[in-house]
Amino acid sequence: MAVRKSRPRGRERLEVEVRRGQLLALGLAMFSQQSYDEVSIDELARAAGISKGLLYHYFPTKRDLYVAALKLAARQLIEQTETDPTLPPEERIRLGLTTYLEFVEAHRPAYSALMSGGIGSDPQVGAILEETRGAFVARIVEDLPRELTTPLVQLALRGWIGFVEATALKWVVAPAKGAKRTRQEDLVELLADVLFDAVKRAASLPRKKAR
Amino acid sequence: MAVRKSRPRGRERLEVEVRRGQLLALGLAMFSQQSYDEVSIDELARAAGISKGLLYHYFPTKRDLYVAALKLAARQLIEQTETDPTLPPEERIRLGLTTYLEFVEAHRPAYSALMSGGIGSDPQVGAILEETRGAFVARIVEDLPRELTTPLVQLALRGWIGFVEATALKWVVAPAKGAKRTRQEDLVELLADVLFDAVKRAASLPRKKAR
Repeated sequence: MAVRKSRPRGRERLEVEVRRGQLLALGLAMFSQQSYDEVSIDELARAAGISKGLLYHYFPTKRDLYVAALKLAARQLIEQTETDPTLPPEERIRLGLTTYLEFVEAHRPAYSALMSGGIGSDPQVGAILEETRGAFVARIVEDLPRELTTPLVQLALRGWIGFVEATALKWVVAPAKGAKRTRQEDLVELLADVLFDAVKRAASLPRKKAR
Repeated sequence: MAVRKSRPRGRERLEVEVRRGQLLALGLAMFSQQSYDEVSIDELARAAGISKGLLYHYFPTKRDLYVAALKLAARQLIEQTETDPTLPPEERIRLGLTTYLEFVEAHRPAYSALMSGGIGSDPQVGAILEETRGAFVARIVEDLPRELTTPLVQLALRGWIGFVEATALKWVVAPAKGAKRTRQEDLVELLADVLFDAVKRAASLPRKKAR
């Protein structure tokens, strides 16, 4: 009996997981191409071929779906920017940055909306952003010699993430009429240079004061 | 008649302006010390000694008061970070940064909330942030030799503003237990170094490609 009962429950659970994953993928696609306010739950249910009622069963509010999609996007971003650990650190940084900029381009409207400032703040959104930035910082710190990981270097790394985000946000929007868009490889080069310089500067600062 | 009629109207207008200014100052103080959600319109009306009805006459919604207070804060920040144009550019940058960090400390909860990411975005809030960043970039560009103001340098300057914001946000929160807070002068030094390095790197990048 126990076995016969558990199989449908297992299958149901699987169906729930699959359906949830499909809705999440669809939500991610919609939030990537439209701003939060533009995404309509009606449209989403229609695109998924399910009723609004069933959609609300999986994600009780639009905000819930948004937060889940953002978490998924953050995980994908962290995974995709992973690089071959046998490559030289400087090349790994450039490869990771190239993937990052491509990711931002693919999710342009969502990235702009996320980074452009709203009324008040959302603790869950803030936490996902913080975790993602923390993961990037941790990845860079791993490759640094121990003596370079001072608190000021850690602060500089957070600053550098801010530098990357601010330039990506500017770069990803269409340039003004007549203006040429900065080439992706030039931006990658700049971002890598700024990282190496900032780490060196931050690491030297406590030494300077100690003299 | 015209003169007698115009005087009270003028005085009324003045009273409206004064009252509006007082409410704005009070709103700025409250939004600086509490997050948007924590600020209560009831409390604000009580602190101002007026009815909620009269408060709504000046600012129809909490959001209106928030946006007006943010505009005021942005204007104050831009004014206060103005420096003596006869000083050397590097010293002006350090002075401006010191004032910036002091301003962030004085408005800590509002700054954290503003920079921490929320659900969706607000066009007016986004515009105020963009204008403020643009004003800082323009101020730095003014002091740069003409040949250094390439599009990539402009992009680097926006990136640097992001670097400043990200480090200020981290720096302003209480450090983890047992951890020492980075000294303000060390952070100022780092931020100034990163700026000078980033401008040099960005300015050299198109040259490198042109060879």
